[in-house]
Amino acid sequence: MTSVLLRQCLLISLLQVGLVSIAAAEDPLPSWNDGPAKQAILQFVAKVTTPGSPDFVPVPDRIATFDNDGTLWCEQPSYVQWVFAVDRLKELAPQHPEWKDTLLPLLSGEMSGKVKFSEHEIAVVVGSTHSGMTPDEFETIVSGWLKTAKHPRFDRLYTELVYQPMLELLAYLRGQGFKTFIVSGGGIDFIRGIPEEIYGVPPYQVVGSSGRVKFEFRDDIPVLIKGAAVQSIDDGPGKPENIELHIGQRPVMAFGNSDGDLQMLQWTTAGKGPRFGLLVHHTDAEREYAYDRDSRVGKLNVALDQAPSHGWTVVSMKTDWKQIFPLEK
Amino acid sequence: MTSVLLRQCLLISLLQVGLVSIAAAEDPLPSWNDGPAKQAILQFVAKVTTPGSPDFVPVPDRIATFDNDGTLWCEQPSYVQWVFAVDRLKELAPQHPEWKDTLLPLLSGEMSGKVKFSEHEIAVVVGSTHSGMTPDEFETIVSGWLKTAKHPRFDRLYTELVYQPMLELLAYLRGQGFKTFIVSGGGIDFIRGIPEEIYGVPPYQVVGSSGRVKFEFRDDIPVLIKGAAVQSIDDGPGKPENIELHIGQRPVMAFGNSDGDLQMLQWTTAGKGPRFGLLVHHTDAEREYAYDRDSRVGKLNVALDQAPSHGWTVVSMKTDWKQIFPLEK
Repeated sequence: MTSVLLRQCLLISLLQVGLVSIAAAEDPLPSWNDGPAKQAILQFVAKVTTPGSPDFVPVPDRIATFDNDGTLWCEQPSYVQWVFAVDRLKELAPQHPEWKDTLLPLLSGEMSGKVKFSEHEIAVVVGSTHSGMTPDEFETIVSGWLKTAKHPRFDRLYTELVYQPMLELLAYLRGQGFKTFIVSGGGIDFIRGIPEEIYGVPPYQVVGSSGRVKFEFRDDIPVLIKGAAVQSIDDGPGKPENIELHIGQRPVMAFGNSDGDLQMLQWTTAGKGPRFGLLVHHTDAEREYAYDRDSRVGKLNVALDQAPSHGWTVVSMKTDWKQIFPLEK
Repeated sequence: MTSVLLRQCLLISLLQVGLVSIAAAEDPLPSWNDGPAKQAILQFVAKVTTPGSPDFVPVPDRIATFDNDGTLWCEQPSYVQWVFAVDRLKELAPQHPEWKDTLLPLLSGEMSGKVKFSEHEIAVVVGSTHSGMTPDEFETIVSGWLKTAKHPRFDRLYTELVYQPMLELLAYLRGQGFKTFIVSGGGIDFIRGIPEEIYGVPPYQVVGSSGRVKFEFRDDIPVLIKGAAVQSIDDGPGKPENIELHIGQRPVMAFGNSDGDLQMLQWTTAGKGPRFGLLVHHTDAEREYAYDRDSRVGKLNVALDQAPSHGWTVVSMKTDWKQIFPLEK
């Protein structure tokens, strides 16, 4: 082949394996405004992926972990999984007369804002709606619900209320050799019920809270059945603990938005070599929500205080993000 | 480009992305004798990877799980992790006078074959030698030990007593779009201490037994510390349960060698669509070991009985494997 053809051939090959992208070469993060947050990301990724750089990180070590609620999708006014659980409770209630005096009064109190559920009550609600079936059946229920349930304010599907800038970041990092993991306080199989194409993260790269799943035979067929007991809460210190269990490597980059992500960011950025921590700060009441220190959902207080001394990047949604959600189709 | 050049270009591209390999096109499993086991593997992989085939399995669903002890490496006369634990116990004993009347007598009884450790005692030995440090420190201890400890009969490193036919199988399946996972009864971070290049399986694709790891601060630095308490035994029914937790998908292919793999194979092959289960039967006392129904280590009894009715392939090490271990360097 002539050298021109050879070069064309090489380019086609590289495009095929996704090592280069013409669009990405222009601007991999088009929904991010030019500013310190975007610059910090681009500069960090450049230094850890440039061969010969003193901060070069080999591909197998390029691990990036993302919180889900408030980091990848909207968590206000309620965590999506909680809305799902309450919808399920209402749907299942006719078959459970025993809930009449226990769960349902709590529910109406919660809905009117008069009652705040205790952790125990949350466990009961989640246990009642998330157990007794196989994980596959549960994921089918979740993905079915996600096809119709709409956000009360935006009147869009929850899967349309993912953050466009973060979708671009996930894809950009993968294009740079990173493995992207979701590390969510939400249930591991609830997150796995979100269609894979939304985040581009396969089921085995999802870490989350979990209940015990039990292997047993039903009608001579081996099945796994979701139990009601909570096995692991993937929040706060549970995040680095579960990262160790599931991933077995300290992340190079970690992304969160609340105090539930504090220990994940602490542990990530305490590692040797280049590390990157980022907090999404919800500062945009107009386009999304504005909340931090006193929020009941997604409280961001200690982590915000610690960000400067740890060198964590704080994204201001209002100024750093050109666009919040994907365009309506 | 001319069509010839275009074809060359396409071939180069495919070679680069690993979709085809000239060597693989010749014989992807050169250490397997031609016989029913090898044919079953090749025919199964061909039918699930051929586009348009009624049994075609999309790449994201191509999950293959491998037991480790006795399936990927030699487990006789003792599980390698047990040899490691005993070595550690002896090494640490001078710093632990309290072991003199408890652990060490058990140890000498065990070594002379007079005593069989109870599950509780095993937990004590493993807890004493596998806790109190960070997972990174532990993996460093393991990988250091693996560099020097030798098998009593073969006088080779344990990492040289991996099965060459299974290494070829791992690489072949990955080349066909499968994700290969290790699902071991051994400790998850013990397996992660085996150098990654041996099996080509990254840490986040290792599933195993685990102890609780705790996030805490030591000298103001966040660390994860391995606790002594066992969290999950990845054996028997624990295998499908942990596959669900870690992988979140039912495997398409599962490989084991003992009754500890029974439920993993049952669950795998009970799935809809094409599924493949395989048992390595240790039938070669001369080149390795011959054992099954009455073996203390790696007992294969119920699973062997169930293999025919489930359609599981049974590999006879003696007749199906041309070569057992990698050639000496």
